[in-house]
Amino acid sequence: MIEIIKKKRDGEKLSRNEIEKFVSGVKNGEIPDYQISALLMAIYQKGMDLEETTKLTSSMIETGMKFDLKDINGYKVDKHSTGGVGDKISIILAPFAAEMGIIVPMISGRGLGHTGGTVDKLESVPGYRTNINLGEFKSILKKIGCSIISQTEKIAPVDRKLYALRDVTATVESIPLITSSILSKKLSEDLDGLVIDLKVGSGAFMKDIDSAKKLGKSMKEVGEALGTKIKIVFTDQSSPIGRNVGNSLEVIECIEILKGNFIEDTVEITLSLLKEMCKIAKIHEDPMPVLKSGKVYERFRRMVKLHGGDLSKLKVYSNPYEVNSEDNGIIQSIDAYKIGIASLKAGAGREKKEDKVDSKAGIRLLKKEGEEVKNGDTLSLIYTKRPHEPIKNIVLSAYKIKSKEPALKSRIIEFW
Amino acid sequence: MIEIIKKKRDGEKLSRNEIEKFVSGVKNGEIPDYQISALLMAIYQKGMDLEETTKLTSSMIETGMKFDLKDINGYKVDKHSTGGVGDKISIILAPFAAEMGIIVPMISGRGLGHTGGTVDKLESVPGYRTNINLGEFKSILKKIGCSIISQTEKIAPVDRKLYALRDVTATVESIPLITSSILSKKLSEDLDGLVIDLKVGSGAFMKDIDSAKKLGKSMKEVGEALGTKIKIVFTDQSSPIGRNVGNSLEVIECIEILKGNFIEDTVEITLSLLKEMCKIAKIHEDPMPVLKSGKVYERFRRMVKLHGGDLSKLKVYSNPYEVNSEDNGIIQSIDAYKIGIASLKAGAGREKKEDKVDSKAGIRLLKKEGEEVKNGDTLSLIYTKRPHEPIKNIVLSAYKIKSKEPALKSRIIEFW
Repeated sequence: MIEIIKKKRDGEKLSRNEIEKFVSGVKNGEIPDYQISALLMAIYQKGMDLEETTKLTSSMIETGMKFDLKDINGYKVDKHSTGGVGDKISIILAPFAAEMGIIVPMISGRGLGHTGGTVDKLESVPGYRTNINLGEFKSILKKIGCSIISQTEKIAPVDRKLYALRDVTATVESIPLITSSILSKKLSEDLDGLVIDLKVGSGAFMKDIDSAKKLGKSMKEVGEALGTKIKIVFTDQSSPIGRNVGNSLEVIECIEILKGNFIEDTVEITLSLLKEMCKIAKIHEDPMPVLKSGKVYERFRRMVKLHGGDLSKLKVYSNPYEVNSEDNGIIQSIDAYKIGIASLKAGAGREKKEDKVDSKAGIRLLKKEGEEVKNGDTLSLIYTKRPHEPIKNIVLSAYKIKSKEPALKSRIIEFW
Repeated sequence: MIEIIKKKRDGEKLSRNEIEKFVSGVKNGEIPDYQISALLMAIYQKGMDLEETTKLTSSMIETGMKFDLKDINGYKVDKHSTGGVGDKISIILAPFAAEMGIIVPMISGRGLGHTGGTVDKLESVPGYRTNINLGEFKSILKKIGCSIISQTEKIAPVDRKLYALRDVTATVESIPLITSSILSKKLSEDLDGLVIDLKVGSGAFMKDIDSAKKLGKSMKEVGEALGTKIKIVFTDQSSPIGRNVGNSLEVIECIEILKGNFIEDTVEITLSLLKEMCKIAKIHEDPMPVLKSGKVYERFRRMVKLHGGDLSKLKVYSNPYEVNSEDNGIIQSIDAYKIGIASLKAGAGREKKEDKVDSKAGIRLLKKEGEEVKNGDTLSLIYTKRPHEPIKNIVLSAYKIKSKEPALKSRIIEFW
C-alpha cells in the first residue's frame, strides 16, 4: 500500500492491479484509514486518467452487489443530480419516465450541507420506506416501473467508506473521486443509460461551467467505457429550483405540479431530463400531454403507497414566519446557496452526516426572479421551530432587488 | 481541522494559530489519524514556508519536555546525522567533543531500512542502557560531559506520532516535515548549537546535492530562527563509512580508532564535524593530539560504564562467510545502499520499526576503494545466522572493480 501511495504521490499512473488491490483492501478493512486518506489526498492533488478512473469505478462496482433486472422488460434508465437547492426533480421524474414506458430503478442520496437529498424528501411522507430489500424493489419496479430507494450497505460498499473519509479529509472535490463515487452507485443498478443533471452555480457543487464540464467529460467517458449510455444536461443552479425548499415542502410542490399547477423552472428541468431519458429508451412520444393527463400523478401516488407512504399525513409547520421586502423593485436573483443555508438552519438539512432532518421545516419562496415587489410585501415564508430571526436575515440577503428588468435565462445550459 | 486540511490542500499558508491547533490536537489525541495523514500528504505536496516550518517545529518542542541544562557549565553542542551506512561517528564524536570541553547531551535514533542507528549500536554493548531518566542523564553529563540516550516518550511526543504515520503513508521525504522532526527532538536538548552531518549519495536519504541543500537551508534557517546556532557539513555517503557495518561491528571499529588504529574516512568525517562543534563552543585547540593521547578512548569507556555497558562482552558471530572477488583490478566504488541492504538482510537492521536487530550481525569490508584485488581475494566478511548466499550476491554487486585507478575524493563536500 505504501508503494501505491508513493506512486500516486509522485504523479504516476496506478496499474489496474494496484487499483484492484486498493479497492479490495478497503472493502475487507485491510487498509487502515490513515493510508486510505493519504492516497485520497494524493489522488486529489495528482488526479487520475480515464483508464485509472474507469478501473477504480469498476472495482468499486464489483466489490458490491449488482442488481440483476434482466427479467424486467424495458429500457432501464436512471437520472442523477449532482445536488442542488430545491431539487425535487426525481420525485416527479421517476413516475413520469415510468409512465412513458421506462424502467427507473433509482437509488438516491440524503442531503448534506446546503443541498437536499431525494431520500430525505420522500421520507417526509409518513410511512415511506426507502430501505426496502432487493426483492421488494424489483416487485415494485415490475408493478409500476419506478422505485426510489436509499443506498444500502451492499451497493458499492467501498464508496460508502471512501465517501465518509473524503468528507472529513477535504478530498471531496476531486473529479476522479466524484466520478467513481457517483457511477459506482448508479452503474450497480444494471442500467441501459443514465442521465446526469450536472448543476452549475452558487447552489451547486460546481460553481463554474468549466469545472462542471471537466466533471461531465469524466463521467461521460468513464460511464460509456463501462458500457452504459451517459447523457449530461448542464443546468443552472444559481437560484433555487421551484418555489419550495425543504422536505415536506418539496413533496408538496411536486404534488401541485403533478396536479397541473405548473411551476415553470421545475417543469422545464424535469422535461429536459425526461427527453434525454426517452432518447436512450428510443421513446418518441410527446411527454407534455402525458403530464397533463393526471396519469403521472396517479403513478406517483401508487409509488408512494407501495413504499408504505401516506400522503394525507404530509405536514409542514403551521404559522410560518414572513420575510418581507425592504425595497421596491423587481427581483433580479435569489442566491441558491443562501437559501440552501437558510433551509439547513431552519432544520431541513444536515450540518453533519449524523444529524436528523426536520421534515416539516423549510423555506417557501412566494416571490421569484422577475416578479415585482413593494416595500413590505412578503417575499418568503420560513417554516421552522428554531429561532427564525437569523434565518430571516439570510433569506433577505439572498434576494437582489433593483428597479430594472432582470435578464431571465433558461435553466438549461447545454446538452452533452 | 477540515478547514486546515483544505487550506494546505489548496497551497495556502497556515497561520500560527492553525499550526498550534494541529500540533496540540495531535498531542491530545483529538485529531483522528486519517485527518493527520491527509494533512501530511497535503504538506508533502504543497510544502511549507520558513515561518510555517518554524512554527510547526516550535509547537512540537513546546508540547514535549525540554531539558534544562543551565546548571551544567559549558557550551552544549550536539551533532545530528541524516543517516547513512556504517555511520558510527557519534560514538567517537561524543566523548571526543566532551574531551575538548563541550557538553554533548545527545538523543539518538534507531536504524530503519538500509540505515543504522546509534542507539542500536550502543545497545550491542551488553548492559548499555539508552533509556535512562533525565536525572541520571544530567548526572552523567556533569561527570563526563557526554551521554548518548534514546528518544523518550516525553521528548517531542508529536514527532513520534507524526513520524509513525509518515512512515506508513509515503510522506517521509518532505523538507518541512523532516526539518520539524529532526529539530523538534534536537532543540529539546537545550543546545547552544547543533552540527548537522547532511549525507548525500546512494546510502543517504538525500540522493543528490540539490535536494540535500534544500533540506540544509531549511534546517539552518528554522534552527537559527529558534535561536540555536546551526552548522551543516555536507558529506558523501555514496560508499559505506569505514570498514564495518552492523551494530557490534561498528562499536569494534570505533574502539580500534580510539586505540589509534585510524580508519581514514571515519576519522576524516569525525574531525570535520568536531571542528564545527568547536567553532560553536569557541574552542581553538588542535583535536588530533587529543585523539592520539588515548584520553578520548578513556572517556568513551567511562561513558559506556556509566550507562551500564560492559565492553568485554561485545560479540560478533564467529566464522563469518567470505565474499571473494571474481575479478582482477582496483576497487572503484562500493555502493553504500547495497551494503546497507546486505547488512539489513544479515539481521543488523530493521525492515519494519517493530523488528529487533541482531547486534552480532553485519558486514566487514576488508577491501575498500582504491585497493587492488585479485580474483579470489576476500573482499568482505558477512556475519549472520541467516542464509548467506543472497547476502553474498548483494555485497558482490556493490563492488565495482576495474583496471584503472579510481578518482578518490574527500568525504567532505561543503561546509555551511
